[in-house]
Amino acid sequence: MRDFSSDHSALALNTASLGHNLEGHGAGWTSEQVIDACAERGFGSIVFWRREIGERAVKIGERVRSAGLTVAGLCRTPFLVGTQATDVESVMDDFKRSIDMAAALGAPVLTIVVGGVHPGTKGVAESLKIVADRVAEAAPCAQASGVKLALEPLNPVYAGNRSCLTTLRDAVDLCDRIAAPNVGIAVDVYHVWWDTELERQLKRAGAERIYGYHLCDWLAETNDVLLDRGMMGDGVADLKAIRSFVEGAGYRGPCEVEIFSANDWWKRDPGEVLDVMVERFRNCC
Amino acid sequence: MRDFSSDHSALALNTASLGHNLEGHGAGWTSEQVIDACAERGFGSIVFWRREIGERAVKIGERVRSAGLTVAGLCRTPFLVGTQATDVESVMDDFKRSIDMAAALGAPVLTIVVGGVHPGTKGVAESLKIVADRVAEAAPCAQASGVKLALEPLNPVYAGNRSCLTTLRDAVDLCDRIAAPNVGIAVDVYHVWWDTELERQLKRAGAERIYGYHLCDWLAETNDVLLDRGMMGDGVADLKAIRSFVEGAGYRGPCEVEIFSANDWWKRDPGEVLDVMVERFRNCC
Repeated sequence: MRDFSSDHSALALNTASLGHNLEGHGAGWTSEQVIDACAERGFGSIVFWRREIGERAVKIGERVRSAGLTVAGLCRTPFLVGTQATDVESVMDDFKRSIDMAAALGAPVLTIVVGGVHPGTKGVAESLKIVADRVAEAAPCAQASGVKLALEPLNPVYAGNRSCLTTLRDAVDLCDRIAAPNVGIAVDVYHVWWDTELERQLKRAGAERIYGYHLCDWLAETNDVLLDRGMMGDGVADLKAIRSFVEGAGYRGPCEVEIFSANDWWKRDPGEVLDVMVERFRNCC
Repeated sequence: MRDFSSDHSALALNTASLGHNLEGHGAGWTSEQVIDACAERGFGSIVFWRREIGERAVKIGERVRSAGLTVAGLCRTPFLVGTQATDVESVMDDFKRSIDMAAALGAPVLTIVVGGVHPGTKGVAESLKIVADRVAEAAPCAQASGVKLALEPLNPVYAGNRSCLTTLRDAVDLCDRIAAPNVGIAVDVYHVWWDTELERQLKRAGAERIYGYHLCDWLAETNDVLLDRGMMGDGVADLKAIRSFVEGAGYRGPCEVEIFSANDWWKRDPGEVLDVMVERFRNCC
């Protein structure tokens, strides 16, 4: 495994960890403040959310690079299935807009959260077929823009309304079905830490299809499945084992910290949060 | 598949669906009222919880049989791992007491909810090994009492603090490891509906190791992962497909309705709840 004790340039900040610059979270820091604070602390890259970028994609991308960092990715496509995705034309238009933003930002990876069970269907099988069709349709456009599409399986607790894609096994199956050169997976410890098949499925994905590795921790007593994620080291996920699986599969990309924590980390000083991230990344991951 | 349109004697009530006779839930019905109401409606069997039984196991078992029903099972063992299971002696004593109660009640199956990640460990692997050891130790005693032990995988959202056993795959792996003639699995649609590997793992388990099939539904917008289960037909689980997988694997035992629903079904008249169960079982499952 890579030794991060003296160099943590593999560390990426997902800006969600500072509360998305939302009012009342992360001290209301601007994107520019976040970029400078990451650069000061030796982070290697940043992942943004569309809501933070607006019309400023090119400008923010340049700002990141002039600070000596890279943009590692963009979150995220619209839901491709589910109750919010019934108008296929508007879904595909928005999918295209998210690809364009990633390209303008210089983000090599766009994360896909697929959406929940599609109206009129039961279980996940039919919905996953629709996801495959819609990703396959958008993949060439993303390829032409130099953007990779990362299918991210979410914890099964979200299967109803956020992601009918719940396991790495299903994500790799989708990649196989879509068979596009720029469609791969992102693995987030929050969503997959419980999966005993992780090592096998990461090997099956292979380094060339692993586009992202997301870090946080699963708190044993999770109060809110959406906004109560833990800092690395504070929970029960075996982060060192998962890292060894991810790297054992050949992944050498960023380690992206993504912590949704409305009542704890989002309320703290962002500089403190970033300092703790660096320390925990060096010692617990 | 079996045709339940004219006969629903396969239907079992898990008493949790009426709020465990707790004050303020299920109209405070006694176990005797529940038994009579199930008999009137053509249910075939009942599954009780230990907290409802106390010292009355023999008496309640007889009451059930004299009403023309059977006891299908008892919920449940203590957690075998996790923060509540650090004193191995008291855990195994309580495990033994739950086996004795099942035997006294005439319950052929005792459900095991294994508990969360064991203190001092990360991830689920170590905890599952401890579970295997503790179930293997108790299995001969249960066998001597005529009690089968059903390992129930729970939705991964509970992996931290309730069940490090999350998938049918892991449950069958545990059965293989324990290799006792009376250790099998219970499959609950609430916990596994999202799992695309279900059919394969049920076949792998085989009819002789499937000890229970639990019904409810997963509401697309679940407000509380513990106490907001849906009535069959109200959610997004593909109940007919899952039933075909379970029966395809050879299972012919009870279909047990288990609905934890603090703010909806537990607040309704228990007779109405049972009537709806029968109707939904006939039409949606």
